[in-house]
Amino acid sequence: MQEIPYKIYLEENEMPTQWYNVRADMKKKPAPLLNPGTLQPVTLEDLSHVFCTELAKQELDDKTPYFDIPEEIRSFYRMYRPSPLVRAYCLEEKLQTPAHIYYKFEGNNTSGSHKLNSAIAQAYYAKKQGLKGVTTETGAGQWGTALSMACSYFGLDCQVYMVKCSYEQKPFRREVMRTYGAKVTPSPSMTTEVGKKINAEFPGTTGSLGCAISEAVEAATKQEGYRYVLGSVLTQVLLHQSVIGLETQSALRKYGVKADMIIGCAGGGSNLGGLISPFAGEMLRGEADYELIAVEPASCPSLTRGKYAYDFCDTGKVCPLAKMYTLGSGFIPSANHAGGLRYHGMSSVVSELYDQGLLKARSVEQTEVFKAATEFARVEGILPAPESSHAIKVAIDEAIKCKETGEAKNIVFGLTGTGYFDMYAYQKFNDGQMSDYIPTDEELDKSLSQLPKI
Amino acid sequence: MQEIPYKIYLEENEMPTQWYNVRADMKKKPAPLLNPGTLQPVTLEDLSHVFCTELAKQELDDKTPYFDIPEEIRSFYRMYRPSPLVRAYCLEEKLQTPAHIYYKFEGNNTSGSHKLNSAIAQAYYAKKQGLKGVTTETGAGQWGTALSMACSYFGLDCQVYMVKCSYEQKPFRREVMRTYGAKVTPSPSMTTEVGKKINAEFPGTTGSLGCAISEAVEAATKQEGYRYVLGSVLTQVLLHQSVIGLETQSALRKYGVKADMIIGCAGGGSNLGGLISPFAGEMLRGEADYELIAVEPASCPSLTRGKYAYDFCDTGKVCPLAKMYTLGSGFIPSANHAGGLRYHGMSSVVSELYDQGLLKARSVEQTEVFKAATEFARVEGILPAPESSHAIKVAIDEAIKCKETGEAKNIVFGLTGTGYFDMYAYQKFNDGQMSDYIPTDEELDKSLSQLPKI
Repeated sequence: MQEIPYKIYLEENEMPTQWYNVRADMKKKPAPLLNPGTLQPVTLEDLSHVFCTELAKQELDDKTPYFDIPEEIRSFYRMYRPSPLVRAYCLEEKLQTPAHIYYKFEGNNTSGSHKLNSAIAQAYYAKKQGLKGVTTETGAGQWGTALSMACSYFGLDCQVYMVKCSYEQKPFRREVMRTYGAKVTPSPSMTTEVGKKINAEFPGTTGSLGCAISEAVEAATKQEGYRYVLGSVLTQVLLHQSVIGLETQSALRKYGVKADMIIGCAGGGSNLGGLISPFAGEMLRGEADYELIAVEPASCPSLTRGKYAYDFCDTGKVCPLAKMYTLGSGFIPSANHAGGLRYHGMSSVVSELYDQGLLKARSVEQTEVFKAATEFARVEGILPAPESSHAIKVAIDEAIKCKETGEAKNIVFGLTGTGYFDMYAYQKFNDGQMSDYIPTDEELDKSLSQLPKI
Repeated sequence: MQEIPYKIYLEENEMPTQWYNVRADMKKKPAPLLNPGTLQPVTLEDLSHVFCTELAKQELDDKTPYFDIPEEIRSFYRMYRPSPLVRAYCLEEKLQTPAHIYYKFEGNNTSGSHKLNSAIAQAYYAKKQGLKGVTTETGAGQWGTALSMACSYFGLDCQVYMVKCSYEQKPFRREVMRTYGAKVTPSPSMTTEVGKKINAEFPGTTGSLGCAISEAVEAATKQEGYRYVLGSVLTQVLLHQSVIGLETQSALRKYGVKADMIIGCAGGGSNLGGLISPFAGEMLRGEADYELIAVEPASCPSLTRGKYAYDFCDTGKVCPLAKMYTLGSGFIPSANHAGGLRYHGMSSVVSELYDQGLLKARSVEQTEVFKAATEFARVEGILPAPESSHAIKVAIDEAIKCKETGEAKNIVFGLTGTGYFDMYAYQKFNDGQMSDYIPTDEELDKSLSQLPKI
């Protein structure tokens, strides 16, 4: 076997030419989205009012296993992809573990995360359809930044509704978006009907992704030549993000490494879904077996404590309903510092894989997560995003277990991004002022009791 | 000729095994450092009170052309090196230029800049000497961050004096350093004699690299088991930074590309010196010819408006004197946003190459620099550091000239880092509130009149 370098870089010509649609290999498919008015499965026409037509087609297609990546998107990908699969030699040594730890690093681009993989695809299809611009929401700001970059590349107008607590904690994220020409509004705002309503109902709310989605959808449908785009949860997003898993698969194959365990952080499921899809595909086709693990914050535990049911994707209830693991669309998580993991529900593809037992889930508390993040930063050099650090925490836990059992497992995790815009959170941690928050059963019961009866 | 990829990554085994010392190929050597007490050339013993012994040796050696890079340092380099040489296809297309533009991108690590190349070397030699810790100053915060990372890797204590205006503009930089375990003090502080003196003399001063250096040197010499380390100006730093130029040279050779022009931003000269050294070496040996261009801010124009003379390296006059292009050690530049380019002098190696005519220099104003930065970010995806953007500005200017003349020049520039911690500056620019400041002749005459008479 070849010696494994610190960073495995695929050649540009080894970059995937197609995205992989895991639904095609699932015998039991994720349940369809439902029209919020009729409660019937959404049609292409329904979706095309909100989304670009090509993206709506991708959303609905659960049969086609591979979609060609258009050359214009591949050309953009080449600016920051293939991303490295890094062998964490220094972390292994620090932990004195026999395990081999690998991480797929998606933070080497200005958006600081994997979100760019789908942003550029969505901007491309919007441009191709002749639109003027797009609207979206952003939580941690990673998606908004990615979309700003993508829109700037294709000359599209970009309007971002940013969850208020992130807007306030991350003024510099806003400036990155503005530098790329985007308009950024804190959500809930007074510029939309739904925003006004939410502000009236919950004065002083720091917002949620669910609210921001409703505002962005409203803004898209009220402006001629605009559509709404979304950075997570949707299956089209997981499709685009499959580029992460496909590259990981190629890089591992190139060096003859068989992963035992693949770990990803899970908010709406975009990174996790993209990372695990090709591996889940192998499992579904009976070709291989892996231990797939989703890691979510204890403060927003949709997989580990939520219910698998149809629910609204947004607080304003204007979007289609999805069957997913959910905490209820009224659930507003505590102001924890992993802004990207504060969504009440989970991608229906990830939810279905979880329900079928192909995927496990764990929840972790944020103080432990920042401890793992700091440990990782100090030996591996990269200062990780709070979101990504959820995966680091579990990877370290597993590597320590290997130390106890003596197993030399191959542990792969997704390092979705960098924490350069999360220093407010690190400051809290450095000052010993970070706290943990876990919702009580009563709180969850309350928000789950409001699930729609379907 | 092979098709040139967007990003040329050398293999790990193509990474340089030796640093290159350009002084060895210079017939006329840079003038020696002088002991501030005796005004005689410094001895190894003089320097060893302040610097680690091995580094002091490197500082004084102008004969040995190559120094082996210790394996421990190469091992750390592998975490983020070789860094990519990027072909700026998108920028070329945007500018509609026949020129081919390449940039050596040093920002793909958490310190966000090339500074890590020397930080890890200096921390290594400090550790090898059995020291407890090191002290240093930082301007923009890039060097301090790099040193924090390096010290954390080798388990050394790290004390950073941060120029006050950067400390205030960049609270998050401070947190990155703290996350890596460093102690950060705004300079001028009240913790050193020299800091107290400067605060008394210039109440409300926002500081300068010159002051911060004096404080850090004082702190190092007053603590047992500590030495002072510096991120720029010194020839040892240029030696370590030669890894940038050596990789650039290898990458260009690999694809049969002959650079016509090599452009770097210049503060103290660490990046510029490292980037151009191997190319200047070829020129000095009569093997090739290049147009080498240093770009400095109009607000701190040491090469273009300074004097080539012996001067103090620090405001407190505790460091050795260097012969260099200088604005006078009492020069305090306006609070412009390229914190890394606010030093009053220029590396004596870079100064001598400039004086011998091997290197040209240009100064540019910051509003134009941010315009170029934004243009670059929007097409190339990377949000550049204000410092690096000085080089971008001139690279764009040159590419536009090529458009006029029809020449297909190969333009190479150093993209030293990312601007993720400079969003306050971008915000000023985005809000149209950025101004330019050029020192008057009278101001420069005044600070230059205080040069030591040697």
